[in-house]
Amino acid sequence: MMNRILITGAAGQLGTMLREKLRGHAAVLRLSDIAEIPAARDGEEVVPCDLADGAAVRKLVEGCDGIVHLGGISVERSFDLIEAANLRGVYNLYDAARANGMPRIIFASSNHTIGFHDQTTRLDHTAPYRPDGLYGVSKIFGEAVASLYHDKFGQESALVRIGSCTPRPENWRMLATWFSQDDFVSLIDAVFAAPRLGCTMVWGASKNDHGWWDNTHAAFLGWHPKDNAAAYAEEIARTVPRPGRDEAVARYQGGVFTDEPIHPSKED
Amino acid sequence: MMNRILITGAAGQLGTMLREKLRGHAAVLRLSDIAEIPAARDGEEVVPCDLADGAAVRKLVEGCDGIVHLGGISVERSFDLIEAANLRGVYNLYDAARANGMPRIIFASSNHTIGFHDQTTRLDHTAPYRPDGLYGVSKIFGEAVASLYHDKFGQESALVRIGSCTPRPENWRMLATWFSQDDFVSLIDAVFAAPRLGCTMVWGASKNDHGWWDNTHAAFLGWHPKDNAAAYAEEIARTVPRPGRDEAVARYQGGVFTDEPIHPSKED
Amino acid sequence: MMNRILITGAAGQLGTMLREKLRGHAAVLRLSDIAEIPAARDGEEVVPCDLADGAAVRKLVEGCDGIVHLGGISVERSFDLIEAANLRGVYNLYDAARANGMPRIIFASSNHTIGFHDQTTRLDHTAPYRPDGLYGVSKIFGEAVASLYHDKFGQESALVRIGSCTPRPENWRMLATWFSQDDFVSLIDAVFAAPRLGCTMVWGASKNDHGWWDNTHAAFLGWHPKDNAAAYAEEIARTVPRPGRDEAVARYQGGVFTDEPIHPSKED
Amino acid sequence: MMNRILITGAAGQLGTMLREKLRGHAAVLRLSDIAEIPAARDGEEVVPCDLADGAAVRKLVEGCDGIVHLGGISVERSFDLIEAANLRGVYNLYDAARANGMPRIIFASSNHTIGFHDQTTRLDHTAPYRPDGLYGVSKIFGEAVASLYHDKFGQESALVRIGSCTPRPENWRMLATWFSQDDFVSLIDAVFAAPRLGCTMVWGASKNDHGWWDNTHAAFLGWHPKDNAAAYAEEIARTVPRPGRDEAVARYQGGVFTDEPIHPSKED
Amino acid sequence: MMNRILITGAAGQLGTMLREKLRGHAAVLRLSDIAEIPAARDGEEVVPCDLADGAAVRKLVEGCDGIVHLGGISVERSFDLIEAANLRGVYNLYDAARANGMPRIIFASSNHTIGFHDQTTRLDHTAPYRPDGLYGVSKIFGEAVASLYHDKFGQESALVRIGSCTPRPENWRMLATWFSQDDFVSLIDAVFAAPRLGCTMVWGASKNDHGWWDNTHAAFLGWHPKDNAAAYAEEIARTVPRPGRDEAVARYQGGVFTDEPIHPSKED
Amino acid sequence: MMNRILITGAAGQLGTMLREKLRGHAAVLRLSDIAEIPAARDGEEVVPCDLADGAAVRKLVEGCDGIVHLGGISVERSFDLIEAANLRGVYNLYDAARANGMPRIIFASSNHTIGFHDQTTRLDHTAPYRPDGLYGVSKIFGEAVASLYHDKFGQESALVRIGSCTPRPENWRMLATWFSQDDFVSLIDAVFAAPRLGCTMVWGASKNDHGWWDNTHAAFLGWHPKDNAAAYAEEIARTVPRPGRDEAVARYQGGVFTDEPIHPSKED
Repeated sequence: MMNRILITGAAGQLGTMLREKLRGHAAVLRLSDIAEIPAARDGEEVVPCDLADGAAVRKLVEGCDGIVHLGGISVERSFDLIEAANLRGVYNLYDAARANGMPRIIFASSNHTIGFHDQTTRLDHTAPYRPDGLYGVSKIFGEAVASLYHDKFGQESALVRIGSCTPRPENWRMLATWFSQDDFVSLIDAVFAAPRLGCTMVWGASKNDHGWWDNTHAAFLGWHPKDNAAAYAEEIARTVPRPGRDEAVARYQGGVFTDEPIHPSKED
Repeated sequence: MMNRILITGAAGQLGTMLREKLRGHAAVLRLSDIAEIPAARDGEEVVPCDLADGAAVRKLVEGCDGIVHLGGISVERSFDLIEAANLRGVYNLYDAARANGMPRIIFASSNHTIGFHDQTTRLDHTAPYRPDGLYGVSKIFGEAVASLYHDKFGQESALVRIGSCTPRPENWRMLATWFSQDDFVSLIDAVFAAPRLGCTMVWGASKNDHGWWDNTHAAFLGWHPKDNAAAYAEEIARTVPRPGRDEAVARYQGGVFTDEPIHPSKED
Repeated sequence: MMNRILITGAAGQLGTMLREKLRGHAAVLRLSDIAEIPAARDGEEVVPCDLADGAAVRKLVEGCDGIVHLGGISVERSFDLIEAANLRGVYNLYDAARANGMPRIIFASSNHTIGFHDQTTRLDHTAPYRPDGLYGVSKIFGEAVASLYHDKFGQESALVRIGSCTPRPENWRMLATWFSQDDFVSLIDAVFAAPRLGCTMVWGASKNDHGWWDNTHAAFLGWHPKDNAAAYAEEIARTVPRPGRDEAVARYQGGVFTDEPIHPSKED
Repeated sequence: MMNRILITGAAGQLGTMLREKLRGHAAVLRLSDIAEIPAARDGEEVVPCDLADGAAVRKLVEGCDGIVHLGGISVERSFDLIEAANLRGVYNLYDAARANGMPRIIFASSNHTIGFHDQTTRLDHTAPYRPDGLYGVSKIFGEAVASLYHDKFGQESALVRIGSCTPRPENWRMLATWFSQDDFVSLIDAVFAAPRLGCTMVWGASKNDHGWWDNTHAAFLGWHPKDNAAAYAEEIARTVPRPGRDEAVARYQGGVFTDEPIHPSKED
Repeated sequence: MMNRILITGAAGQLGTMLREKLRGHAAVLRLSDIAEIPAARDGEEVVPCDLADGAAVRKLVEGCDGIVHLGGISVERSFDLIEAANLRGVYNLYDAARANGMPRIIFASSNHTIGFHDQTTRLDHTAPYRPDGLYGVSKIFGEAVASLYHDKFGQESALVRIGSCTPRPENWRMLATWFSQDDFVSLIDAVFAAPRLGCTMVWGASKNDHGWWDNTHAAFLGWHPKDNAAAYAEEIARTVPRPGRDEAVARYQGGVFTDEPIHPSKED
Repeated sequence: MMNRILITGAAGQLGTMLREKLRGHAAVLRLSDIAEIPAARDGEEVVPCDLADGAAVRKLVEGCDGIVHLGGISVERSFDLIEAANLRGVYNLYDAARANGMPRIIFASSNHTIGFHDQTTRLDHTAPYRPDGLYGVSKIFGEAVASLYHDKFGQESALVRIGSCTPRPENWRMLATWFSQDDFVSLIDAVFAAPRLGCTMVWGASKNDHGWWDNTHAAFLGWHPKDNAAAYAEEIARTVPRPGRDEAVARYQGGVFTDEPIHPSKED
């Protein structure tokens, strides 16, 4: 068993969920966020931290033997907001890991790195980037930092391009993108257990019948998702209007993100 | 639910089968053929039509919101016969659809578009055409028409390269090519249900252990065939002599079609 | 040297040009068209023929040891016109060749088989078809017939996807598509000289700096085009207005063909 | 049912296992080895043979309608030892088969033909060779001989790149490489039953969740392994120390073979 | 001819060179840098600007119909320095272009986006990123921004991954990476002249005999570099010691950048 | 300049030619063969050696900083002959190099490693092996040994798949396969000069218009052949009868080798 897993972004939706589901997967869960986090319980420690503060991040990483990096902005926002959390923050995290024994990092990347691909196109790990917003661009930055620290220092990472990690699929697009919470947890376990990880991109999606993404390149991890959004297909068909074929939500893998404007920075 | 599905070639073997199995999948099934069709029942309408008659086909398509295009010759015949039904006919159908709101078309293409590939070769959607007769050539023509109407007008199609759609697999080759009737029906449902279809080729085969064809590019449709010809493998091995490895039926994916002569036209 | 080369479509623009340029490349040039052809000279014979007439085509092919098949419609027209010349005609030609010793066929295919590819995309021989009109569809039909007769009978063909075979490039698009007359002639010589031809697609274009098409798969023919549309680039830039980036002529490889409507048939 | 299957290397670990498991899969099992073999029972015949002796091998093959060729060295040894058994021996076997009606050959090749590929890389049948020792090189030689006899004479073979064929997976690497005995047997059955085999490489591994090798190209054989090393993953995690990520056993697909020195020949 | 080309980073080495060489390629060259620039001459205007200042960049771009974006850090530096110039700066530039009629942008990307590829590996436009420093990461960020603005707004860009743009090749590695100044200029002309540009990556290298990078995907631009570092090979071999095969400069495409440490930020 | 280059097989046709042409490319040429070699001249030393004698080969390699390994059988022969020279011999050579500072090895491989590919198929470095005889199989063995010694010890090699190295092309097939003597020499120079070589396959052919083989993956060596068999095409067409398209010499890349029987061993 692992000794201490750091979860950044622990106050967010995914962080809150993983805080519960990862209990017992390590002796200690170190929970960190810039926002307030409910107080530590047994087997937990809470370490507030601004990811944009490099010195603080170095301390944060100390003593951890695994990191689940959820911290940062997870929707389309202005460059200013994205810069602090998703650019400087991810650099700070990787550089802190380098200085602290290089614990494995599970980096929460996103399908919005490839959001402008058509939903009729299947993608594998060689698909070119096609970001659908500054948020997606920032996740490409993070993947590039991970690649750099792997080639230069040997830092291992799983780059998990999360689809839609919600309790259940909620619309037609999620029939393809749904990533069940349990499947996320089992992926984290697989990544920390593997003898060798390298710097490996993993599509963060359950084994959905309608899926767009091919994880066969990463089969060596032995991760086999169990859930399938198709179990909810009938219910969705009954309750959610089918989108028109040329609506962003039916056309592009990134869905409505492709329709978002660029958010103005303060100075604009 | 759909309002009206048109089935062309409704008097044929596949048409007769689908007439039964698609009952209730649309408010009305419009059944059409150049041959006689048993009289319409509840939820059916019979519209005789010669596919070579463009004006008639326009009328035929009117008011439909989905088309299963089985009409035409389905075996190797003379150019004359193939021309009327499979060339002019498919052009008439697509042009009629264009003029009538572009209902989705499920086009019954064929494995005979690629029949000269060796049975030891696995094919995906990028495999080059290798037709094994004029019939196969005519289906390539149909696929090209579908591509044209998609790129030029936005017409959506599923190009289903049907293997062997019989009640059960009957010989060694069908261990690979069998397309169960139920799997055909579930494919039709998936194609009509999908928010976005594009112009997508689908190998028309069940999930046969011995299969040659890879449908992963079309996974976004959420179609998962359920039947497997391997369930009949023992029985076939017991009752059907194993063909020699260099017989057409064991060598080429198109089987005996590759051995057919070119059928003379009237004028020849 | 060859004994007798048949040129179909000999009254057309390309046919007239090749009639001159191929003089002396065979003992006899047999010139055929459905339209009137200027009278035969030394080393020529004129054989009028309607390609839609199978029996006549059989006679036409007799005694030839090479065929340059230009005959048929070469622009976007109605299905009726295309059917007679480009579908039935090409079938008649191949079936006549089969019955007459299978002389090599140089089949004038077209870039309009792939016309909906974007001009920023480079294509090689594995590019999927994307026809831009019924004309392009008919050329796909012809290529499929050639493939069939090769696999089934051993008939050899060069499938030449002609770009723009004009005396000189005339507009911006032709900087990519230009196929000089001399390069066409040297290709014909190379195809007839090669010990082994198979059924080989060749992009019919000169070695244009701005080219989109990759012929390396066909290097075994030893054909090396000599002309380069770039020699005319300055003149074109000076005299022809640069098209907007989203005009069909700048966007799609098939140029304005992608903007053509479907031409109505007589009956429509 | 087959009449007579020859098993070479029948005294070895795999040979002993298959002797038991293939009982009844042919009227007669002919068992051969250079080492002593327990006496023949019903439905068996024992034929001692040195594979390096060409004349003897010809006799050995006579009358067999299927061959499971396990004979030879199966670990890293000196060139001298490998030459006699794995180079000369495999040549002798193929040449003997050619002279005896060309019974199908199941050739026990090895993952050590590709042992220097990283464990984070998934391989299919197009992966380049990267042998990890003279043993691996000798298996490449055998695969090349099989290819030669197929192209030149039509000899059919299955080239089975065996992973780790042990009663159960014993360490972390075997989570990927394990090839259960039952799956090996069902593969042999599938190979002998297929109407057409060609010269087909098959990765010899069970359907392990952690697998590195992709057999989809060989799906036409209808072989579907049933076992999964993941069933033993927990036990291995509990009882076998996890290797460091840069140890040969965790880094390279060939595992410790990549760390072996070259064994000196007698003369060295 | 173009009306006004903006050159950012005009005080730098490349900027100074292009200022001279692009004279006369547009009615006006607008020269900008955060550093001091020699005073404007005829046909020039000097507009000092900090790329990190979004409002200033908007003004800077106004009225330009082409941009050569050289501005920013071009060597390995701390995150702080790179952030301001290469992350925020490139965002500011693209967003300013969006708001100002979307003039074409030639973005000076870098071979350091792929610097960890081995020198024995040939790359085309599908090669995965392998950045060799934060500088390379920042250029990936820039390419991603360009892709986003193309997909979302239609902004066209050439992403020029510059090798070594020096007056002449100076060492062994530059035999592969040299990008002559004249070839850079002719590329700029080609990019601004093309009817359609899209968002196209171009390897910024001359036609060096020893080159690693394949530009055939971008042939549609009609750009044909003229210079060849091989002309200097003998001189380099005579005057520059050949590096050992495992030195960074001989091993990785990014050369010594792969050996650079991560530069500490102010706060570190 | 190099100090001492070893040429094995120095009494053969290629060896004799290279002895002349490499004079002055190293301080000393060490010439070795099992057959008699004309006496050493200035800057030469003659060292007779049987490649099958491992101890002798170790001595032979001592003190060399480059090896051109031509030794062995170069036509189709019995397994016995091939084994001694081409299997044991190449193993001895590589193991001797390992023990002597690992001088670069230029290994004379052959097009007969891929001889069963059709002449209408273009091959690059990823083409699968298809040997056309035991000779071709032995060259695959040699390439595998080279790969092993590279991965295990770092030994660098150029694997030169020689086409037809004759003073001039002599027949139709050599229009594709000709490898001029000067081009061979310039390749040797390029290989020894390159800072980094790795284990790189190079097609040994001139830049023939009719060529089948693509060397772009090896462009990093900076080798550009200068000769072109097409210069002799007219003469060959005039003096050598064109082969029929189904003769081995026109059909397969290996030419008549594909028609050779397997030569019997002594014991057969």
